[in-house]
Amino acid sequence: MPEKMTISALRRAYASGETTPNALISGLSARFQDPDQEAVWISTASRDDLAARCTALEADPKNQDLPLYGIPFSVKDNIDVAGFETTAACPAFAYRAQVSATVAARAEAAGAVCLGKTNLDQFATGLVGVRSPYGVPRNPFNGDYIPGGSSSGAGVSVSTGIVAFAFGTDTGGSGRIPASYNGIYGWKPAPGTWSRYGLVYACRSFDTPTVFTADLDGALAVDAVVRGPDTKDPFSDDGRVEPVEAPRVAMVPLDAVEALGDAEVGGLYRNAHGQLSKLTELAQADLSPFQSINDLMFFGPMLAERDVSVGAFIDAHPDACHPVVGPMIQSSRTFSAADAYRGLYKVADTRAATAEFWTKHDVLVTPTVGALVTRAMVEADPLGPNFLNGTFTNFANPLGLFGLAVPFGVTAKGVPWGITLYTQPSRFQAAVQIARALERSDS
Amino acid sequence: MPEKMTISALRRAYASGETTPNALISGLSARFQDPDQEAVWISTASRDDLAARCTALEADPKNQDLPLYGIPFSVKDNIDVAGFETTAACPAFAYRAQVSATVAARAEAAGAVCLGKTNLDQFATGLVGVRSPYGVPRNPFNGDYIPGGSSSGAGVSVSTGIVAFAFGTDTGGSGRIPASYNGIYGWKPAPGTWSRYGLVYACRSFDTPTVFTADLDGALAVDAVVRGPDTKDPFSDDGRVEPVEAPRVAMVPLDAVEALGDAEVGGLYRNAHGQLSKLTELAQADLSPFQSINDLMFFGPMLAERDVSVGAFIDAHPDACHPVVGPMIQSSRTFSAADAYRGLYKVADTRAATAEFWTKHDVLVTPTVGALVTRAMVEADPLGPNFLNGTFTNFANPLGLFGLAVPFGVTAKGVPWGITLYTQPSRFQAAVQIARALERSDS
Repeated sequence: MPEKMTISALRRAYASGETTPNALISGLSARFQDPDQEAVWISTASRDDLAARCTALEADPKNQDLPLYGIPFSVKDNIDVAGFETTAACPAFAYRAQVSATVAARAEAAGAVCLGKTNLDQFATGLVGVRSPYGVPRNPFNGDYIPGGSSSGAGVSVSTGIVAFAFGTDTGGSGRIPASYNGIYGWKPAPGTWSRYGLVYACRSFDTPTVFTADLDGALAVDAVVRGPDTKDPFSDDGRVEPVEAPRVAMVPLDAVEALGDAEVGGLYRNAHGQLSKLTELAQADLSPFQSINDLMFFGPMLAERDVSVGAFIDAHPDACHPVVGPMIQSSRTFSAADAYRGLYKVADTRAATAEFWTKHDVLVTPTVGALVTRAMVEADPLGPNFLNGTFTNFANPLGLFGLAVPFGVTAKGVPWGITLYTQPSRFQAAVQIARALERSDS
Repeated sequence: MPEKMTISALRRAYASGETTPNALISGLSARFQDPDQEAVWISTASRDDLAARCTALEADPKNQDLPLYGIPFSVKDNIDVAGFETTAACPAFAYRAQVSATVAARAEAAGAVCLGKTNLDQFATGLVGVRSPYGVPRNPFNGDYIPGGSSSGAGVSVSTGIVAFAFGTDTGGSGRIPASYNGIYGWKPAPGTWSRYGLVYACRSFDTPTVFTADLDGALAVDAVVRGPDTKDPFSDDGRVEPVEAPRVAMVPLDAVEALGDAEVGGLYRNAHGQLSKLTELAQADLSPFQSINDLMFFGPMLAERDVSVGAFIDAHPDACHPVVGPMIQSSRTFSAADAYRGLYKVADTRAATAEFWTKHDVLVTPTVGALVTRAMVEADPLGPNFLNGTFTNFANPLGLFGLAVPFGVTAKGVPWGITLYTQPSRFQAAVQIARALERSDS
């Protein structure tokens, strides 16, 4: 089991003089060729560039007050970082970014140090982490299982302890599913509360950048730096926050999860239910209205958003694209403008149908994944297990929800697993409170 | 020049005992066959039904405290009123409504009396008021000119003084343009602040019901009754309102209006500029970023929203549809789902591009129409003048704006004309303040 790195531990180590950014990060950069990093990175910063960056940070003692001073991080390779190529896991698509995405720029301005760009399902189209010409990042806990996607390299870069945080993106679950498969936290802001500027869009109208961390404090530290409006993102919103005193929690019932047929996940979910029920009263959540829009994402008109983003490239470079991803995006062309509007109405109707739920509950608890997926399963059927992974994730962004994926135990085969806490955008502190209570009761 | 009816005058007349709902409304219903009502109404309430409704109102003296006690109103025939047919100006489309639209239900609950359903451009597709098998409501000021559309009957029902208010709808300008051509107020709420439940949708994602009145107080009285969330409308919002102290006003420059070539409108706009400049400092508004989305509505993918609403009907009844309207809606089928999303991104980009304007200004003043359109012009070219009418109106609903069309003078040919005051949804009181000041300086 790799040792994970936390922002708070690093801050203490820097403050005590136990280490320095230069010392730490030169050690980390020596690990890029290690077996556990195979296929995790699409590009990495040079040792010289990292040393120059750390030396510049160390040159001014005031920098030590920066909230992410000397904190190493990775960036999913569909997010621009100036000076790095952006490939979106398609070599022919690569371009050298001139300007950093807002999330990366804000992290760097807060003192963080970017080690490189991580692997992903091509064009962030997938929830498995195996759809990349750059290989499959190995799940460090059990290589028979997928790393989770599309932010596969991001998740593994945190679970193998080479960075303290990793920026991912999330359209249908890509910022949560790798958290579950890697035993880490996946912080998925409500769409609009973190800027999308500098992303290769999947579904531009509800994509969001995300962060993976080893602990809850790490996610909060990054959120504090990154959150906030951005005039460069027209879908950016004001990110209104409401205080929540005693979160009212509703949970998908045990039998609904057990019915999915993965006994180990069923058992872990039962444990989660038991532990949560010690912390608070638990109502039962009927997830079916939420899930009624799941099929819009990979089998419906929402696919056409991906076509707007990369369809012209796919047409021009059919052989450069992953054999599952290219045709899937092109298949969206059977949908008409009327179909797209029907999809939007369905989402609006679903928001309305779930509005009452949110008057009664602050937090919705679901498994992050309801049944664990192996690499062999995806090889045998590239589409089915991918969609299965999204059972508890696809609906969240179209509905504008905040989601926090929290690690919660491992299976007998050593595969991590977790739950996700969903809230309305303005009430994400309710999820933080519950996650905090779980973290305390866990330790 | 017909005498218009105001809610406040009627309330005074009822309070003083000068008249009663029964007396007033039986007199009004005797006017349905008058020449000035020709083609205004698609269906009218029977004398018996009106008498029964008035008698029920009068039976309980407490009803006199209702804010719209005994106030006669009309409803555009794409809005359901229980007991009436809804035709949307297409006889074959007609159905008998079982439940009233929320706006009509709230008005009736406040004591108002519905006289009937008014004519419109078929399926609310048009800004001219001549696209109806039920004929063309005559512009009461000059029959050579269009009544304005699509809420043609609604506008004329107020300008001919047979009702004190008229519900219309507005997608691209239908709640504002008839106000200009009829010398009345057109109150267009920001989409979502008035419920859309019970409308035959044109573009469901940004349609809104509206109201026409003879004076500003009338519009405010109806807004007070109708405004507010509705669980039956999934696009309904919370209608947040911000106080505005001294509205900052920006106005489309004189030369931009004069360049449209209608010297009479240019002169009236110059007068409006002069009068407004006595009331407040006037900044110059660059309207081009707003107008950059105008062509999405009648020549772009937004047309597909109309296809979702009535396309299946048009296909099944091709001969039942207006020769301009049916093919126009069917033409939307060349647009793909990707085109629809591109349109949404364009709207989002335009919101972002105009955000800075709204940090500097509270009210945007434009002509409601920039050049007056005659019936002969529309007969010669059914599409061009229609689009011309939307020059200053098409952008408002996709951008979520509030709009208040205010009458402002008549041309040498006696045709009324007016300006529109646009604001952000939460700041509509700024438009009310300016309209109030204009009304005072006018009288």
